[in-house]
Amino acid sequence: MRLAVIGAGAVGRSVVELAGEHGHEVVAVADSSTAVVADGGSDAVGVDPDAVVARKAERGIVGDDDPEDALAADYDVLVEATPTTLGDAEPGFSHVTTALERDRHAVLANKGPVAERYGDLRAAVDDSDGAIRFEATVGGAIPAVSTVEDIEPGHVTAVRGVLNGTANFILTRMAAEGLDYDHVLAEAQDLGVAEADPSFDVDGTDAALKCVILANVLSFGAADDPADAREFTLDDADVAGIRDVPGSALRLAAEDGQTVRLIGEATGETVRVAPRLVPENGTLAVSGTQNIVQIETSHAGRLNISGRGAGGPETASAVLGDVGRLE
Amino acid sequence: MRLAVIGAGAVGRSVVELAGEHGHEVVAVADSSTAVVADGGSDAVGVDPDAVVARKAERGIVGDDDPEDALAADYDVLVEATPTTLGDAEPGFSHVTTALERDRHAVLANKGPVAERYGDLRAAVDDSDGAIRFEATVGGAIPAVSTVEDIEPGHVTAVRGVLNGTANFILTRMAAEGLDYDHVLAEAQDLGVAEADPSFDVDGTDAALKCVILANVLSFGAADDPADAREFTLDDADVAGIRDVPGSALRLAAEDGQTVRLIGEATGETVRVAPRLVPENGTLAVSGTQNIVQIETSHAGRLNISGRGAGGPETASAVLGDVGRLE
Repeated sequence: MRLAVIGAGAVGRSVVELAGEHGHEVVAVADSSTAVVADGGSDAVGVDPDAVVARKAERGIVGDDDPEDALAADYDVLVEATPTTLGDAEPGFSHVTTALERDRHAVLANKGPVAERYGDLRAAVDDSDGAIRFEATVGGAIPAVSTVEDIEPGHVTAVRGVLNGTANFILTRMAAEGLDYDHVLAEAQDLGVAEADPSFDVDGTDAALKCVILANVLSFGAADDPADAREFTLDDADVAGIRDVPGSALRLAAEDGQTVRLIGEATGETVRVAPRLVPENGTLAVSGTQNIVQIETSHAGRLNISGRGAGGPETASAVLGDVGRLE
Repeated sequence: MRLAVIGAGAVGRSVVELAGEHGHEVVAVADSSTAVVADGGSDAVGVDPDAVVARKAERGIVGDDDPEDALAADYDVLVEATPTTLGDAEPGFSHVTTALERDRHAVLANKGPVAERYGDLRAAVDDSDGAIRFEATVGGAIPAVSTVEDIEPGHVTAVRGVLNGTANFILTRMAAEGLDYDHVLAEAQDLGVAEADPSFDVDGTDAALKCVILANVLSFGAADDPADAREFTLDDADVAGIRDVPGSALRLAAEDGQTVRLIGEATGETVRVAPRLVPENGTLAVSGTQNIVQIETSHAGRLNISGRGAGGPETASAVLGDVGRLE
């Protein structure tokens, strides 16, 4: 497949670098202000992935073209890997609808459109010959969305898990070292596991967006008529983060063989993120930056899938898995 | 989709019972000597699932037709759920090729053809407009095969795990109760977790067949030319079971925070099943009849998927997931 990669952050660059190994060709790359588009001649083999990534690293640009040129390029799949934005989820939302209006496919790593405008996305897909997929928006390398899809959302009663590696790392280190939140946050920032402004992760927003996406999948998937399906947005989520978890809570929990994890849960009716007590050797108590997705099914019991929830190559792997499913 | 279900054991009966919930119609069911085929009139809605299952329970037959009638019926997907046989993998192998020769699809729960005649199956698929899927042959409800497929076998370096619930139950109980193998085997047989002749499970054959299937997927998936791919059969597997694991080994292991599990591992070059020491609170130390599949990837680290590895509804769930992917 020919890919137009919109977004040249860690995920976009990893998709550009790994696409060839999966048998795909990158025909365009765009960042927020520049683009590079393969010239489409008869022996064109797409853009040079290494050159594009190097140019971005050294000069902060991907090319001399305009981002609009990337959106107008001759691609099969548009990969939407620009930063997650809330509310109107722009410009990511429009990137996706531009592809669909041209009867092309879109694969999203950007959570914004899927969490905040799921109904509008579904409507755009209905009017298009193209399809959308968004495995990379939930759980990085963990195949959460496709597993729920294969079991069929009507047969999944709930999905829960540890969906944010930054918050999980902090809680793991607080429990392991007996340290307080502020101390461990500083350590996480030094390691590059937490950002300078960590609120998106530690306040539970990132986990909540992932749960909202799962709730939309469950709700629309189970509805006889999608027009009747309940649509979720971030506003529907009941969210509590980890800033107020004291070190003492973890010490007390440990006396009972328990610990604390930031757990998100989605059903077709509710979305909830909060710190919860879990058995310290139990399935949900994954360590460090690991994620886990636990799927409750009607006929097959509970499935647990754990792995790396974030990272350029990990998320790119999910994106390229989606491209493969569209072939 | 219209399904012909060949095999009326626990898995076949569950597929018959659950197909309607997934929007599919069962047009034929066969056991080893009888069949029932829907009459295919203009308002036909397939066979009556409850009636078929009840008839099998009460009279030991599914209908008054002949199994050949089921194979000749007008179906979209043949579900091969007859007992696993080794070597020539008959009659299951021929059921699958019959469907493919008619340009229909086949979904297997029967491990025999996939483990013992993978090359012949691939050749039959190449000559057909139909496709085969076989998620249900490995790990029951766990989406092992489709996850490897989505990551792409060339990007999976190894797959390992606990793939037999009977053996795992026995080892779990031996460790928990400090009892010997023979005692726990008897308990497992009373509970219906182990069969009267448990050798298929406790000697590691069942786990080995699943690993052989995974090795075939990895080997053929990574090959540039399938004609060059190495084909695996059960004979290629290095297999040791659990009969000779003494209770003392588990007690000694526990002193070091370890336990013993029957671990199967497949790469594109080797298949090995043996009891192994694993950390007792680690990921591979699943309990009871649970299974776990651990997938090592090139770019996305390690994925762990645990859940129910066996059972009628669980395995049927995997079969119906495969049918959904063929639509």
